[in-house]
Amino acid sequence: MSEPKPFPLNAWYAAAWSHEIKHELAARTICDRDIVLYRRADGQAVALEDACWHRLLPLSLGRLKGDEVVCGYHGLVFNAAGRCTYMPAQKTINPSAAVHAYPVIERHRLVWIWPGDPALADPTKMPDLHWNDGTDWVGEGGTFYKLKCDYRLVVDNLMDLTHETYVHVGSIGDEAITGSPFEVSHTDRTATVTRWMINIDPPPFWAAQLAKPGKADRWQIIYFQAPSVIVGDVGVAPTGTGAPQGDRSQGVNGAFLAAITPETERTCHYFWNFVRTFKTDDAQLTREINRAHVSNGQGVYDQDVTVLEAQQKAIDRNPRQPFYNLNIDAGALWARRMIDRLLAAEHGQSARPPGVAAE
Amino acid sequence: MSEPKPFPLNAWYAAAWSHEIKHELAARTICDRDIVLYRRADGQAVALEDACWHRLLPLSLGRLKGDEVVCGYHGLVFNAAGRCTYMPAQKTINPSAAVHAYPVIERHRLVWIWPGDPALADPTKMPDLHWNDGTDWVGEGGTFYKLKCDYRLVVDNLMDLTHETYVHVGSIGDEAITGSPFEVSHTDRTATVTRWMINIDPPPFWAAQLAKPGKADRWQIIYFQAPSVIVGDVGVAPTGTGAPQGDRSQGVNGAFLAAITPETERTCHYFWNFVRTFKTDDAQLTREINRAHVSNGQGVYDQDVTVLEAQQKAIDRNPRQPFYNLNIDAGALWARRMIDRLLAAEHGQSARPPGVAAE
Amino acid sequence: MSEPKPFPLNAWYAAAWSHEIKHELAARTICDRDIVLYRRADGQAVALEDACWHRLLPLSLGRLKGDEVVCGYHGLVFNAAGRCTYMPAQKTINPSAAVHAYPVIERHRLVWIWPGDPALADPTKMPDLHWNDGTDWVGEGGTFYKLKCDYRLVVDNLMDLTHETYVHVGSIGDEAITGSPFEVSHTDRTATVTRWMINIDPPPFWAAQLAKPGKADRWQIIYFQAPSVIVGDVGVAPTGTGAPQGDRSQGVNGAFLAAITPETERTCHYFWNFVRTFKTDDAQLTREINRAHVSNGQGVYDQDVTVLEAQQKAIDRNPRQPFYNLNIDAGALWARRMIDRLLAAEHGQSARPPGVAAE
Repeated sequence: MSEPKPFPLNAWYAAAWSHEIKHELAARTICDRDIVLYRRADGQAVALEDACWHRLLPLSLGRLKGDEVVCGYHGLVFNAAGRCTYMPAQKTINPSAAVHAYPVIERHRLVWIWPGDPALADPTKMPDLHWNDGTDWVGEGGTFYKLKCDYRLVVDNLMDLTHETYVHVGSIGDEAITGSPFEVSHTDRTATVTRWMINIDPPPFWAAQLAKPGKADRWQIIYFQAPSVIVGDVGVAPTGTGAPQGDRSQGVNGAFLAAITPETERTCHYFWNFVRTFKTDDAQLTREINRAHVSNGQGVYDQDVTVLEAQQKAIDRNPRQPFYNLNIDAGALWARRMIDRLLAAEHGQSARPPGVAAE
Repeated sequence: MSEPKPFPLNAWYAAAWSHEIKHELAARTICDRDIVLYRRADGQAVALEDACWHRLLPLSLGRLKGDEVVCGYHGLVFNAAGRCTYMPAQKTINPSAAVHAYPVIERHRLVWIWPGDPALADPTKMPDLHWNDGTDWVGEGGTFYKLKCDYRLVVDNLMDLTHETYVHVGSIGDEAITGSPFEVSHTDRTATVTRWMINIDPPPFWAAQLAKPGKADRWQIIYFQAPSVIVGDVGVAPTGTGAPQGDRSQGVNGAFLAAITPETERTCHYFWNFVRTFKTDDAQLTREINRAHVSNGQGVYDQDVTVLEAQQKAIDRNPRQPFYNLNIDAGALWARRMIDRLLAAEHGQSARPPGVAAE
Repeated sequence: MSEPKPFPLNAWYAAAWSHEIKHELAARTICDRDIVLYRRADGQAVALEDACWHRLLPLSLGRLKGDEVVCGYHGLVFNAAGRCTYMPAQKTINPSAAVHAYPVIERHRLVWIWPGDPALADPTKMPDLHWNDGTDWVGEGGTFYKLKCDYRLVVDNLMDLTHETYVHVGSIGDEAITGSPFEVSHTDRTATVTRWMINIDPPPFWAAQLAKPGKADRWQIIYFQAPSVIVGDVGVAPTGTGAPQGDRSQGVNGAFLAAITPETERTCHYFWNFVRTFKTDDAQLTREINRAHVSNGQGVYDQDVTVLEAQQKAIDRNPRQPFYNLNIDAGALWARRMIDRLLAAEHGQSARPPGVAAE
């Protein structure tokens, strides 16, 4: 028996941005499942197993005929529910001939699929990413497809922002992050890391957005939803204007959004956005902020990618396992613990995936 | 113990076109055996194990000295029978020093080798590919070396031509193929699929060759010789001129020839030709027909290659095994069954190789 | 359990040329260990495990801060002894937080490290490569980093120079090598192959260096120091001038130097030099000799690389194991035997690594 994969299957995962899915076949691998995505004429997104029932040719190499998929090898046809509706040179169709149809929900400008048991697909387990709806919060975003690391390394990365001090020097990194205390709280499927940096000099990016002289209070409230959606409520306000007490009206507020989808055990798709509530009409600023995150290897997220892929390589080389942890890892450890619980529930055991330290 | 390979060793396999083998060393892998080929001064083709007895350096990196091969590392010399005839700095030669010499037969403009036990090499087991002799039938042909799929997927492909309808739309594909019945017959080592399409509109390629208006009768008679040679007798004749009854004189007749040689478990060399008995002096037509088959990814065989390599990748991903079969697979299943019998005979058991469905 | 690696760890291995190691981080893999090298401000070379104690990010992706290394992910700091001296957001440092520090000795213009147990690191076990010191002997040298073969294949290559006759025709190769007898002697950790070719026509390279007409005596005295340093005392003198008896004053004398360092089981770093005691002020000759050895694939060592990498591929294909041996392999077999002894001592058994023939 092979090891269970390190990702729960009974969960909603972002598979694509809504605008990417059209009335044409698109191949994507999610949780080690090869999937073909397309949009029906009525606009409904469809996700089918990307391997013909007959001889396994990827259906994504075939073509759409109305809302059905025609295999490019022998012409078998499958409808949007995955049922075979045509076989060449046969009058009767084997009633069991079908490909798996994955439950799909389109929400928050993303197409989400449920790779696990369709009977368990529960819309109430859909992560909340309303910040991405394009209404109150504005941003452009993007995707790192096929990022070469375990999706959990991205979770680790975002759950501990002290790394900004070292990875993102000169933009959002700041010694104040490392020097400030933080608190972690949690529910069954969420964990929240809250850090306030009071009366500090804001780092370059935030100083520019705030555009007010003097000291500031900076906040980072990172909200994890298992297995792999993270929202970071971040911003700065002039110190003494009441931000820690709840009045952010004098400050600037943004949120980084991350839906991290396992592609394989060692690769993932990282859907990201950085949205804001200030200067929401400034399209130029939207573009600039996007470029500050990802821009030909020069953005702050590009810096993370370099680190994450190098870290994965080092783990593959396996010089030492498990990880050792620091105080700063408290948030990431809670996130890992929740992923582990989902995995244990799915596999009917309390298995601890390799690579996660015992406490 | 590793799994037995999915190819019989005691069989003749095409290793090269005759014109490719000269008085120089050429490396090739056949049935997972690394082989060096060359032609002696007297014209006889030779096939030796491509690894020096001493330290395994490929002999193909050495040089010919007369009809013997000199290793490029320490100068050991091997004759065309594989016997070592010189060792550096030694007066006596270890009598067991030799590399394997593979039985070779040159026939039908191809060099064939027997990768298995030389004592069993039986010239009567040579497949019949006389269509390729360049006498009555004319064609040019070519090779897909290192095609990235199990050789049996090519067999499957050619034994069921309904795929033409979907893979080769606009050239030889035609709904009539799918709609017409076929018969399968077989002997111990051969299987024949016969399909007649009566009173149809010939597809573009055949309409152009026939160059007569009106309906036609089209035939596809596919003849498999285990383990992996296929001849497809194909053509069209004006309907009502007696072709189904045996009089093809008003029609045009071609044959596709395939000698599919396993390179490894997941790659093969596919020697192909398309020969014809009409307009045999028309060299321009010969070139055109070749280009219709293979031409920078645009020919009909190039279309098959795309499908075959994608199918192999899907099998490697292994989403579901074994294959499910349709009625159209009857010919391919007979071919697989004969391959399985050869394998079982060779391995002294009734092993069923993975990837082949139980009946 | 995985097989023991084919290289002893308790030994000194060349890791870099001295001039390559500066006050900056350099990554290198030695004996399957990822190592970061740098030079302290006081000039001392340092070699640390190239994976942060915390989350394994290669330290070589971080930066130097004085003589300490700052991890590029979360800012942990390690001193030149490998001890962690700073953790982000923590007042106390886990006393066990450290990365491995490898014993380093800089000698003979190379930086050597001891990949095994530091407690056993014994400077007296440093190989003697004084020919490389740049005093009496002059040469430039170079490195084949990541040569794609088991380091022992390079040892085999250098311990038997009959290969020159076949691999290096037209430069240093000569039928006389193959025709001349040789002697092998040995101690516990060294083996010496001595071959004298008396009254021969010197091959082109040596004829040009000697620049005296007539017959010559040629010597090759190859000195192996386990596990993988080789010095070849080579040269020619006019025949009859007493070279075999010890008077080389009328001849020209060179030495090829090789420090072969396992990178992985199937790759190595090959530090080489060719030094000489004649015309030591002739910088042009130094460059020419270097180019004769390595020059865009045209030098004599480039020829060896082609052979060695092809041989490794053939071994990986594993058509036949173990090697068969000839008389000429006597020197290589002694070298292998000493490597085996070191391995057996290290693993507490008399294991014979695969790929080495029983006698």
